[in-house]
Amino acid sequence: MRGFEQAEFEARTARAQALMAQNSLAALLLTTEQEVRYFTGFLTRFWESPSRPWFLIVPATGKPVAVIPSIGAALMGQTWIDDIRTWRAPDLSDDGVSLLADTLNELAPDGLIGIPDGHETHLRMPLADMKRLSGKVRLTTDFGIIRQLRMVKSTAEISKIKMACQIAGNAFARVPEIAGAGVPLDRVFRAFQMLCLEEGADWVPYLAGGADQGGYCDVISPARETPLCGGDVLMLDTGLVWDGYFSDYDRNWSIGPATQPVKDAHARLIEASDAAFEIAKPGATAADLFQAMNAVLTRDAKGTDAGRLGHGLGMSLTEWPSLIPTDHTVLQSGMVLTLEPGIAVGDRILVHEENIVITEGHAAYLSPRIGPELPEL
Amino acid sequence: MRGFEQAEFEARTARAQALMAQNSLAALLLTTEQEVRYFTGFLTRFWESPSRPWFLIVPATGKPVAVIPSIGAALMGQTWIDDIRTWRAPDLSDDGVSLLADTLNELAPDGLIGIPDGHETHLRMPLADMKRLSGKVRLTTDFGIIRQLRMVKSTAEISKIKMACQIAGNAFARVPEIAGAGVPLDRVFRAFQMLCLEEGADWVPYLAGGADQGGYCDVISPARETPLCGGDVLMLDTGLVWDGYFSDYDRNWSIGPATQPVKDAHARLIEASDAAFEIAKPGATAADLFQAMNAVLTRDAKGTDAGRLGHGLGMSLTEWPSLIPTDHTVLQSGMVLTLEPGIAVGDRILVHEENIVITEGHAAYLSPRIGPELPEL
Repeated sequence: MRGFEQAEFEARTARAQALMAQNSLAALLLTTEQEVRYFTGFLTRFWESPSRPWFLIVPATGKPVAVIPSIGAALMGQTWIDDIRTWRAPDLSDDGVSLLADTLNELAPDGLIGIPDGHETHLRMPLADMKRLSGKVRLTTDFGIIRQLRMVKSTAEISKIKMACQIAGNAFARVPEIAGAGVPLDRVFRAFQMLCLEEGADWVPYLAGGADQGGYCDVISPARETPLCGGDVLMLDTGLVWDGYFSDYDRNWSIGPATQPVKDAHARLIEASDAAFEIAKPGATAADLFQAMNAVLTRDAKGTDAGRLGHGLGMSLTEWPSLIPTDHTVLQSGMVLTLEPGIAVGDRILVHEENIVITEGHAAYLSPRIGPELPEL
Repeated sequence: MRGFEQAEFEARTARAQALMAQNSLAALLLTTEQEVRYFTGFLTRFWESPSRPWFLIVPATGKPVAVIPSIGAALMGQTWIDDIRTWRAPDLSDDGVSLLADTLNELAPDGLIGIPDGHETHLRMPLADMKRLSGKVRLTTDFGIIRQLRMVKSTAEISKIKMACQIAGNAFARVPEIAGAGVPLDRVFRAFQMLCLEEGADWVPYLAGGADQGGYCDVISPARETPLCGGDVLMLDTGLVWDGYFSDYDRNWSIGPATQPVKDAHARLIEASDAAFEIAKPGATAADLFQAMNAVLTRDAKGTDAGRLGHGLGMSLTEWPSLIPTDHTVLQSGMVLTLEPGIAVGDRILVHEENIVITEGHAAYLSPRIGPELPEL
């Protein structure tokens, strides 16, 4: 099913309002695509345009209120939101700031208004407009409320992520059709995105990867025109979207036979993600998962500069928590995580990634878990 | 050619530093993908992950300095930047803020540091970290320097946008292969993105459109599963990327024969964009182009709620200026613009869009200009 039942948005709003009450917030002010969509279902790729700011207010009681450019009124009118206030953006003299301030002062007179301001957040409006707004209303932190809410997914959200993961799995299974010795890497990147679309992705916001002899040098570079050749390890890491939710995992292939160190490294990556999967249950922490993987990876090898070994996943390609030694977030049923161990092989690296969901019992794979053998193309 | 000669980045930096000197800025602090890439050539889709902040400092003299997560060091090392300072991100206690502050204080001791804060900008770092940074360095506006620089494209930039437009043109020409009566709109959206990739797009960050009887209701909605049927007007508007630069234009088709009002509306849109094209020369203003189109569109009809009739185009899908009555930006040779007239047909709308470049003489089309006849599928 596309979209969500209205009850989903009602529940999200009620949970937010309960946490707002605990923190004496009279409203939340939200500005990013994911924040606005989380409470409204407003789904559009139009956010790619940085020209116009969009605002959503979650008041202490009642439905959220949208303060948005008129170009979005028709689409927002199809959501469960009733109170939609618009201005004709762009307006160079006042791009929604007065309308926003008036609406906030009406909905939350003299109250404290929380804005997401912590790790992995940003404010999607011009800083000069933010300063103007600060003079008209009382702004403060959101006390991590949005993070707390979005980190635990509903059953409906999980099924969308699962669908995205299945589509990616079908595309990964067809990589032998498009990649092999002699094929330029940039052509592989294009063709893989086409496979994702053919298998049902709505769009493919993210594709990274690498291909070099015995591993790759980094995992964020664009594809070069260099043809694949025997001894290369090809890695493709995609974040594709289905109905607004991401998959995010990768796969590796050896072009022709792999060396033993490369085979061993790949097997070690699977051993590492398996180790984290085993303990990925409610009550364990993000740091516990890091340590489980890191113990395997550093037994007689060294890791990478990625900075973490996995992360949350959902409406964004990457979300809280981070699988790092200092993130003590306690896992809860409904969290969706990536397990993303990386290992050095000489001056090259190999990275593996799977997507899992935490349940009351054992965790479950959303991506189709692979075995230790590095497949050959 | 992919990428740019080093001289391009040297020239951009020199122009920035000249404007900084005029405004007594000791440094610029940049945080978004386009801002960082503009001065470095650092090209990666990894920005899709909101987890990590990235910083670039343009000092008063010398090359820019990167303060970035260690995961980006290898790729940044391939650019012309020499001074690359990294931290292991994410770091929940100090996600680069101290390293950034120390670097700013070293490069610009006691100096004023400019941050883009005006229309169409945002700060891509957590607001709480921004507050911490404000206590350690002297931050102010960038006085619109980044806007001023990016608004006028170099010859090398224009050729990349032209390439993106050609790829989109080839994909648009093949729409009869994928769309027609009975084909669900969401399948058309997927297949069109595949065509863009097949024709050479690196990726397709933006696709919007619509299809309804005698026009469409809005231009930002995702595609429904409804099959196209006779009397629908299909519109596809794509922002595809080649080597980091966007095309952004649309095309319309009638499914089966169109009614006379729809045919007339389409012809009127072409007449409107032609009118703007005629006067699109150095010395004219963004507002002049708006008025030229608006006069045609409102002769005996009404416009749409889009808020503007075109905009700048380049490293972002949409950029300054805006074709609105109040944007008095004077056109200069090297500006790349979209002409995007919209018109109401009953309770439906039609929108047309072309991409042009301002030259010393007459403007030139980057998209393959179409005629007034609405093509039929």
